[in-house]
Amino acid sequence: IVKREVTRVITPGTIIEDELLSTSNNYMMSVYESKSGEIYTVLADTSTGDVVVKAFDSLDDLIDFVNTHEITQVICPESMYPQLRDKIKVFIDRLDDWYYTNTIDAIKEAYNVFSIDHFELGDAHYPFGALVKYLNYTINKQAKLRFPRTLDESKYMILDSTTIENLSLVPGERGKNLYDVLNKTKTPMGSRLLKWVILHPLKDRREIEKRLDMVSAFLEDKLLMNEVREYLDGVYDLERIINRIQYDSAKPKDLISLRLTLEVIEPLRDALASNDELSKLLEDLPDLSVVKEKIQSAMYDEIEGELGEGKIIKEGVSKELDEYRELLYHSNEKLKDFEEIERAKTGIQKLKVGFNNVFGYYIEIPKGQVKNAPEHYTRLQTLVNAERYTTPELKEFENKIMAAKQKVEALEKALFENLCNEIKVYTEQLQKVAETLSWIDIYTTFAYVSSLYGYARPVLSDGELEILQGRHPVVERFVDSFVPNDTYMDNRLRMFILTGPNMSGKSTYIRQVGLIALMAQIGCFVPASFAKIPVFDRIFTRMGARDDISTGKSTFLTEMSEVALILSKATERSLVLLDEVGRGTSTFDGISIAWSMSEYIYNEVKCKTLFATHFTELTELANAYDGIKNLTVDVKETADGVIFLHRVIEGVADRSYGIEVAAIAGLPQSIVDRAREILNIIVEKSDIEKKVGIL
Amino acid sequence: IVKREVTRVITPGTIIEDELLSTSNNYMMSVYESKSGEIYTVLADTSTGDVVVKAFDSLDDLIDFVNTHEITQVICPESMYPQLRDKIKVFIDRLDDWYYTNTIDAIKEAYNVFSIDHFELGDAHYPFGALVKYLNYTINKQAKLRFPRTLDESKYMILDSTTIENLSLVPGERGKNLYDVLNKTKTPMGSRLLKWVILHPLKDRREIEKRLDMVSAFLEDKLLMNEVREYLDGVYDLERIINRIQYDSAKPKDLISLRLTLEVIEPLRDALASNDELSKLLEDLPDLSVVKEKIQSAMYDEIEGELGEGKIIKEGVSKELDEYRELLYHSNEKLKDFEEIERAKTGIQKLKVGFNNVFGYYIEIPKGQVKNAPEHYTRLQTLVNAERYTTPELKEFENKIMAAKQKVEALEKALFENLCNEIKVYTEQLQKVAETLSWIDIYTTFAYVSSLYGYARPVLSDGELEILQGRHPVVERFVDSFVPNDTYMDNRLRMFILTGPNMSGKSTYIRQVGLIALMAQIGCFVPASFAKIPVFDRIFTRMGARDDISTGKSTFLTEMSEVALILSKATERSLVLLDEVGRGTSTFDGISIAWSMSEYIYNEVKCKTLFATHFTELTELANAYDGIKNLTVDVKETADGVIFLHRVIEGVADRSYGIEVAAIAGLPQSIVDRAREILNIIVEKSDIEKKVGIL
Repeated sequence: IVKREVTRVITPGTIIEDELLSTSNNYMMSVYESKSGEIYTVLADTSTGDVVVKAFDSLDDLIDFVNTHEITQVICPESMYPQLRDKIKVFIDRLDDWYYTNTIDAIKEAYNVFSIDHFELGDAHYPFGALVKYLNYTINKQAKLRFPRTLDESKYMILDSTTIENLSLVPGERGKNLYDVLNKTKTPMGSRLLKWVILHPLKDRREIEKRLDMVSAFLEDKLLMNEVREYLDGVYDLERIINRIQYDSAKPKDLISLRLTLEVIEPLRDALASNDELSKLLEDLPDLSVVKEKIQSAMYDEIEGELGEGKIIKEGVSKELDEYRELLYHSNEKLKDFEEIERAKTGIQKLKVGFNNVFGYYIEIPKGQVKNAPEHYTRLQTLVNAERYTTPELKEFENKIMAAKQKVEALEKALFENLCNEIKVYTEQLQKVAETLSWIDIYTTFAYVSSLYGYARPVLSDGELEILQGRHPVVERFVDSFVPNDTYMDNRLRMFILTGPNMSGKSTYIRQVGLIALMAQIGCFVPASFAKIPVFDRIFTRMGARDDISTGKSTFLTEMSEVALILSKATERSLVLLDEVGRGTSTFDGISIAWSMSEYIYNEVKCKTLFATHFTELTELANAYDGIKNLTVDVKETADGVIFLHRVIEGVADRSYGIEVAAIAGLPQSIVDRAREILNIIVEKSDIEKKVGIL
Repeated sequence: IVKREVTRVITPGTIIEDELLSTSNNYMMSVYESKSGEIYTVLADTSTGDVVVKAFDSLDDLIDFVNTHEITQVICPESMYPQLRDKIKVFIDRLDDWYYTNTIDAIKEAYNVFSIDHFELGDAHYPFGALVKYLNYTINKQAKLRFPRTLDESKYMILDSTTIENLSLVPGERGKNLYDVLNKTKTPMGSRLLKWVILHPLKDRREIEKRLDMVSAFLEDKLLMNEVREYLDGVYDLERIINRIQYDSAKPKDLISLRLTLEVIEPLRDALASNDELSKLLEDLPDLSVVKEKIQSAMYDEIEGELGEGKIIKEGVSKELDEYRELLYHSNEKLKDFEEIERAKTGIQKLKVGFNNVFGYYIEIPKGQVKNAPEHYTRLQTLVNAERYTTPELKEFENKIMAAKQKVEALEKALFENLCNEIKVYTEQLQKVAETLSWIDIYTTFAYVSSLYGYARPVLSDGELEILQGRHPVVERFVDSFVPNDTYMDNRLRMFILTGPNMSGKSTYIRQVGLIALMAQIGCFVPASFAKIPVFDRIFTRMGARDDISTGKSTFLTEMSEVALILSKATERSLVLLDEVGRGTSTFDGISIAWSMSEYIYNEVKCKTLFATHFTELTELANAYDGIKNLTVDVKETADGVIFLHRVIEGVADRSYGIEVAAIAGLPQSIVDRAREILNIIVEKSDIEKKVGIL
C-alpha cells in the first residue's frame, strides 16, 4: 500500500545515528563455511568502520565467539541458517547465493583498490564480499570500511563465554562486573576499548609490561594524570563522528565536536612533553590543525537552529548566502514600511500586515473599517472581527521571501557538505587520533583506578603465583569490609581442594585469584598488596549448575561438557577454577568422577587448579599427592551461632552448616529441627569417608 | 555548545514510533512508597495509552514484578533509588520532589476532568501524578492516556520470576519457550495480548470455561477459523495507530492502515454471524464506518511521496490546494513555452532552461553562442562549456513556483491534521475495536494451534489431576519423537518422588505437568489425549542452581530462599515442582533438609508436589506416607549401553548412570575408567540407604 523509495534499510548492525547506539561496539558478522569445513568470518562495525577477519575450526567455537562478543547481527548463506538459528541469540539474516559470487570485485570496489592480495584473506573473501554487498544494499551507498585486521589469536588469551560470565567480566545477566568497576574512562571510545581490553588479556609478557609501564608512569605523576584526564573530558566520540562524515550523515554539531576534540591535542602534547615515557604516546600523532581551522573559519562556534536556517555557516564564507540571508532577515523591516504606507494610503490606522502558514502574507482590516478597503485589495480570509486581504505587491513580496528562504537552505546545505568532503580526506589521520586518545584514556583510567582502590603493580613470573592480601575487585566494592587472603602456588604445589561451610566465601576466593591474574594480563594493577603472576595461556572456569531443557542437555551433561572442554584445552600454563563438580548426579557417581578428574588434572594436565567442593571425601587427595593441598575457610562457633571469618587457611572443613543456612533463609523452624534430627542419625553411622581413605 | 530547543526527550519508555518498538508492550512504571511503607505504582504504555494501577506489599514483590513484566523504564523519587538501583535491570530515572506535589491536579488536567475520585487511586495519585508530569515533560505535550485500570490480583494466578524462567514461558535467556510455540497470532496486538495471557493464568473457573468455549467453537468450524484468520491478516496495529493519532504524530500511512483495518470488520461480522456462540464476540462493537469514509473521501488510496508534496490529499477536498497543485505541476509546460520563446527571440537553438538547487532556474547557453546572449540576461554561473543566466521574468516565475510549493506543503499538512483531529473523537470506540480484534486473534490462534499440534480440551476438576498421554509443549516441538506420559494425582495421592538416571527426562516430566496446568488455566487446549486439571491458585518451581556472588548469596542460600518462599506461600490448591533440592551443600545436610522439607509439604501444606532428586534415600518417604509415591524413568541396559526409554513408571532408580553421561560428554577414557573403579569401592561398602530406612 505504502510506496516509498528505499533510502536506507535499518538492520541491527547498520545503525549509525549516535542516539541509537550505546557506547559499545556494534559489530555485524558475516559467516561462511568453506568446502573443507573451515569457517571464515568477517566482522564490521559500521559505526566506526572497523573490520576484523577471523577463522574458526568449528561451529561451536564460532557460536561461543558470537555469544561472547558484541555482535548485533549475523549474516550467513541460507544453507548455514539451520545450524545457527537456535544457538545464536542475535538477529540472523540469510543471504541469497549471489551475495557470494564476484566477492573479490566487491571488496576491490569498496576499498577502491586494484588488488586485495595484501589483505591475505584466503577464503575469507567470500564472507567479506557478501558483507560488502549487504552493506551496500542496506545503507544504499558504498560501505566505508577501514582496512581489515586479523584477530591475532596468539597474542590474546581466549576467554570462553562460560568464563566471561562466571567471572562477571562485563555487563550481562549478573549486575556487578569488572568492567563497571574499572570503567572510569572519560570518553566513549575509551569505554569501548576498555571492554575490548578486558575480553582480550595479553599473552605476551613484553606487551603486558609495556602497558604496565604506562600505567606506572601516570601513577608516578598524579598531577599529570589528573590534568590529562581533564583534557579527555573535552574529547568527543571521534570514531563515530569520522564515520558519520564518511557516510555523509554528519550534522553540524559533529563538526563542532570534532573541532573541540582537536583543540585538546596541543595542550595534551604540551602536558605529556614533561615525561619521557609518556611523551612517546603522542609521537606518531599527525598534525590536524588544518582540519580544525577549516571548521573554525567556515562555521559559527555555537549552533543555533537546524542546518539550512542560515545560522550555521559564518558570514563571509559565501557572498551569495550572505545576500539571501540579508534579504530574509530584513524582510520584517520592509514589511513594517509597507504597513506604514498602506495605513497612510487607506487612512485605516488599525490596518496590520501579518503572516500565516496557509495563506501566507496578508493585510488585516478590522470589521468596522472594511468599507474603507481599497478596490485592489483581494479578499483572502474572513475572521470574526476582521477581514484579510492581499495585493499584487504583497504577493510579489511574499514570493521573493519564500524564494530567498529556499536559497538560503540550499546554499547552506551545499556549503556544509563541501566542508565535510574536505574533511573526509583526513579520515586515516583522524582515525589515528581516535586510537591514540582511546589508549591514553585506558592508561590514565588504570592509573586512576589503581590509586583510588589501592591496587599494586603485578610482577610477572615464570611459574610462581604469589598473591599477598588479595581481594576480589568487584565484591570488595559492594561490601563494608572485605577480608583479604593470600595465595601461593608454583609448578609443584599446583592444586587446592577448598572445602568450607556454605556462604563462607569459597566462590569469592577462587574467582578472586582468576580476576587478579586476568587484571595483570590486561596491563592493569591488581587488588593485592603484592602479586607475582605467571602469564597464563588461558583461564577456565566451571561453576554453577543449570540445565537447558530445550536442547536436551541435562544439568549434569552441561557440567560434564564443560569439564571435558577444560580437560581437552588446558595446558600446564593454564589456570583452572572449579566450583563444585559432580553435583548434578547421585552422590557416589559425583564423588567418583570428581576424584578421577582431579587426579587427571594433577597428573596429566599439570595446570594450576583451585577446586571448591562440598565433597569432603576429596580432601583425601592431599594425602595421596604431594602437590595437592587442602584449604578451608575459617569459622568461629559461638554461643549465638556461627561467625564466618572469610579467612582461607590450610585444612579441611569439619561441617557444612547447611542447616544453619536453611534457617537463615527462612525455612520454618519445624523443618530445621527435623533436619537436625535426621542429620544426627545419618552422620553418626556413615562411613563413606573412612572408605575413600583406602583409595 | 549545541543549543537546541527541546521538542521531545526520548527515554526508553516514551518511544512511540513504530519502527523502534517490538510488537511487545512498552510500560513505564512510576513507583512511590507511602509513609506507611506500602508501595504504590502506576504503569503506562505510551504507545497504546494503557494505564494500570497496582500496589505492592513489599519491595521484593515490586522488584519481582518489574523483572517479570515488560517494563522498559522505572521512575521513582530520589529517596527510593538506592533500594532499586541494584535489583532492577531496567533504566531508572530519579525525579525531584516537586514531581510529587500537586499530583491530583496533574491527573485532572491529563484527563481533563474535574474530579478523579472515581479512579479510586488512594495514595497512588502520587506516582500517577508524577508519571503524568514526567510524560508531559519528556514528550513535551499533554500525555494521552486511557482511564486507569487496576490489576485484579484475585482474578489471576501470580507467577514469580523464577517460575516464569524455569517453565520458559516467554522469550528470555533460554531460547525455546511456550510463547513462541503458541504464537501463531496474526496481529501485533494479538501477540502482545498472548504474552499477557500466558503471564496471567486465570483462577476463576467460569472465566476459563468461557475462553475454552470460544476456542472450541472455532475448532468445531475450521473453515470459519481459517476465514477469520485470513481477515486478521489485514489488521494493522490499531493500538499504536490510535496512540499516534492522539499524540499528533500519525503519518498518512497510519490512516491508510486504519482504514484498511476498519474495512475488515464488516466481512468479519458477516462470517461470524453464522455461529451463535462466536457472533457474540462482535456484539458490542461500535460502528465506525464514518471514520472509514472520512479517510476514504479525503485521502488517496495509495501513498506516494511525503506529506506536503501534494500527493496525499485527494483532488476536490480543497479548492485552494488544487489550485496551487495545478500551478506547481504545470510549471514544466510553462517553462517549455518560455524556453521556446527565448530560443525564438535570441535565435540560439541550443538555449536550454533548467533548474539547480543552489541557483534556482536558469537559461543555459553553450560557450560558442554566448556572444548572442541578449543584454538583459544576467550571468549566474560559468560552466566549462556553457554560461548560465537569469532574467527578471524567469526570476519572477521562480518566485511564484517556490511560493506555490510552500503553500501546497502547508495546506496539505493542515488538511491532514484536521482529518486526524476529526478521527481523535472516536478514540474510545477505536480502542474497543482494537481490543475485540486482539481477543479474536487469541481465540483463533488457540484453536489453530490446538488443531495443528493435537491438543485436547482440558476438563476442570475439584482436586483430581489426571493427564493421559501428556507431552511437554515446547520440547515436543524440537525433538523427532516425544514419549508421552500419564500423570494421576488427587487430594490423597499428592506427592511424587521422582528418581532416575541423568538425561532420562525427569526435568521434562515435571515441567510438562506444570505447563499443561498453566495452559489449561489460560484457556488453551493442552498437549495430552485427555486432561483433568484442578484450578491451581499458584504454580511454584525450584530448579537449577546458581550463585550471585555480588549480592553475597551463595548457591545454597539462593536455593533455600526459594524453598522458603514456596513453603510460606503455597496452599493446598497450589502445584509445587522441585527439581533437586539440597545439592548446594554437603550430602548429609542436603538429604536431611530435603527429607524434612518433603515431610512438611506433605503434612502441612498438602499441595500437589513433584520432586525430582538424585537422593535415592528420599524414596524411603513413600514407605512412611500413604500419599507419597515413587516414580522413576525406565531404562533398558543393552550390550551396547543404556537406552533411555523416557517412560515414567512407578518405582525407584537403581542407578544414576552419571559415569555413562560423563563418557558421553567427552571426558577422557582414563578418567571414566578410574571413576568406575572408585565407584565400585565406595558403593559396595556404603550403607546410608539402610540407615535412612529407620527414620
